[in-house]
Amino acid sequence: MISDTHYPRGDDAANTPGDAAAAARAQLPRFLRACRRERVDAVPVWFMRQAGRYMPEYRAIRSKHSFLEMCAQPELAAEVTLQPVRALGVDAAILFADILLPLVPMGFELEFAAGEGPVIHNPVTSQDDVERLRPVEPRESLGHILEAVRIVRGELPQRVPLIGFAGAPFTLASYVIQGGSAREAVDAKKMMILAPATWHALMDRLSVVVRDYLLAQVEAGAQAIQLFDSWVGALAPDDYRDFVLPYSARVLRAVEQTGVPVIHFGTGTATLLPLMKEAGGTVLGIDWRTTLRRGREVAAGEMAIQGNLDPVALFAPRPELERRVRRVLDDAGSRRGHIFNLGHGILQHTPVEAVKYVVDLVHELTAT
Amino acid sequence: MISDTHYPRGDDAANTPGDAAAAARAQLPRFLRACRRERVDAVPVWFMRQAGRYMPEYRAIRSKHSFLEMCAQPELAAEVTLQPVRALGVDAAILFADILLPLVPMGFELEFAAGEGPVIHNPVTSQDDVERLRPVEPRESLGHILEAVRIVRGELPQRVPLIGFAGAPFTLASYVIQGGSAREAVDAKKMMILAPATWHALMDRLSVVVRDYLLAQVEAGAQAIQLFDSWVGALAPDDYRDFVLPYSARVLRAVEQTGVPVIHFGTGTATLLPLMKEAGGTVLGIDWRTTLRRGREVAAGEMAIQGNLDPVALFAPRPELERRVRRVLDDAGSRRGHIFNLGHGILQHTPVEAVKYVVDLVHELTAT
Repeated sequence: MISDTHYPRGDDAANTPGDAAAAARAQLPRFLRACRRERVDAVPVWFMRQAGRYMPEYRAIRSKHSFLEMCAQPELAAEVTLQPVRALGVDAAILFADILLPLVPMGFELEFAAGEGPVIHNPVTSQDDVERLRPVEPRESLGHILEAVRIVRGELPQRVPLIGFAGAPFTLASYVIQGGSAREAVDAKKMMILAPATWHALMDRLSVVVRDYLLAQVEAGAQAIQLFDSWVGALAPDDYRDFVLPYSARVLRAVEQTGVPVIHFGTGTATLLPLMKEAGGTVLGIDWRTTLRRGREVAAGEMAIQGNLDPVALFAPRPELERRVRRVLDDAGSRRGHIFNLGHGILQHTPVEAVKYVVDLVHELTAT
Repeated sequence: MISDTHYPRGDDAANTPGDAAAAARAQLPRFLRACRRERVDAVPVWFMRQAGRYMPEYRAIRSKHSFLEMCAQPELAAEVTLQPVRALGVDAAILFADILLPLVPMGFELEFAAGEGPVIHNPVTSQDDVERLRPVEPRESLGHILEAVRIVRGELPQRVPLIGFAGAPFTLASYVIQGGSAREAVDAKKMMILAPATWHALMDRLSVVVRDYLLAQVEAGAQAIQLFDSWVGALAPDDYRDFVLPYSARVLRAVEQTGVPVIHFGTGTATLLPLMKEAGGTVLGIDWRTTLRRGREVAAGEMAIQGNLDPVALFAPRPELERRVRRVLDDAGSRRGHIFNLGHGILQHTPVEAVKYVVDLVHELTAT
């Protein structure tokens, strides 16, 4: 059961007879209005990794299925996607999936080893490895994920849009070169400078797959997209410009052309934000290391901003958590063009009540 | 055998009769002159982790001794400290030791498990754990390290100063709370917000130990100090200000009062640099994510800067490596008040010839 307490009130004078466009806009859920930097009745809230082990409903399903099974069975993925919408009253759902899934039809042998994170058994080490990668027709080989998108869209109330997502080409490249998690991206950076042709060939392939996968998600019903360049913060700005920006731009521009808003997100990006903006996106995702004030400066009224509570703050006692939520809202400067979120994903063992508390608090503090 | 090719030439008009102070300054090694933002005959170069597994001389010793043995035996530590000075012609030596060593006399059970990095078997989880920590008299319980300082000083030529170092209180706290490596510092941040009194008590103890340890290093002959706050980039600026800055300041101020220059270093610090400057130090260490141009802005003529080649660049072919070294030098704006270094430590498998090449190239490109 989803609470409608915070349903948009149509504060854009949509009742003027004849102003059909304004009326249509007024029906837009507040999350989508915020992406467009339009006036909102309250600041929208959702959380990265809002579907996850911290929720008992999730653990109940996870206890019976492997992580990859949950991603592969559309009904399970849809159910898990909907859980936080029901439990928390968030303003957007995000598809339950993993950024590494599109690597499988490309030919990567992906395994989620217990306690070790993802392992890719055939990492890319040469131009030949890149040549062997297969093109991906997402409607065929990723059809189960698109089916989950369709199921979720059929279940969600109108006020809660569905966000699709993918890993950005750089972050995927860092995994497939390392053969697993690679926050420092040392092997990826080595390829950039020792074998730039191989690097560019790999990024070319990855960006086409990511682009087509995201376009298929939009076609299946995703109403917004987040591009996760989670580990891009390992790069110097010059390397981002030369080795990453063109490929992210290819993905972002293609998705933006469909008309759905695109959130461009990374962590540790303090010095990369101006270039990330140049690459594209409708909304700039900001982690907790950068103030939203600075995020606004970079966005310069041309992008909305999303963020940026430190996920650890959800463990704080209520008064401290409230203080930190208020600080994020103050720092955002204006309710307009701000989507409240964490600076990265919800941590394991996060108290569900704290997450719910933040949703209600943000709505309460920002309601018109 | 150490090359004297780049010996300071006394370019500060030290030959004026009677100007004894200028003459004394002109004798200062270029590294120390750069720390003071004085004119240099060439930009000084050294590398974080310049003594390490990438060097065959190091591996020859390491093959016969454990890492902790090498730290515990002053003759071995001194020999390993001197190796890169002989092999590379760097402008400073840095003591071979580990930031976690002062934890042992405090009562922590430290182990370097093969392939796993450091493990602390009795992490701090409560106020009681903090109360049980022992005060440290470095001249007694860390005397072997101070002895290594004395041996190295006796062996180094006048033109090569010895840098002592310690981990900053925050970075040490993140290890002792997590029980090992903790780049994201999640457990440390939980303690800050859930048990702030315990956090502050722990930081109080750590900052006293670090301060006294560094003062003892200076007393034993260290001519400069680097404070490594390696993982501080996990923090939001507000948390740095409230939970870290006062303790780093206590350490930095005390060491600065001895008159030796202090390098204040961290990684991922783009948004923390102004506060790190406020905490103190003579030189601001900059990683590759932040441009030296920005580092200069923050330093505002009041601190020198150190950095910031990406350690991965040392794997590049010569023309690309040269291009990247030139870019760092250009970005620094002026030779004055710049110490050339990497943005973090030398990586394993780095080609020694590349490291030597950078030393010579920096000297050649910046010689007056």
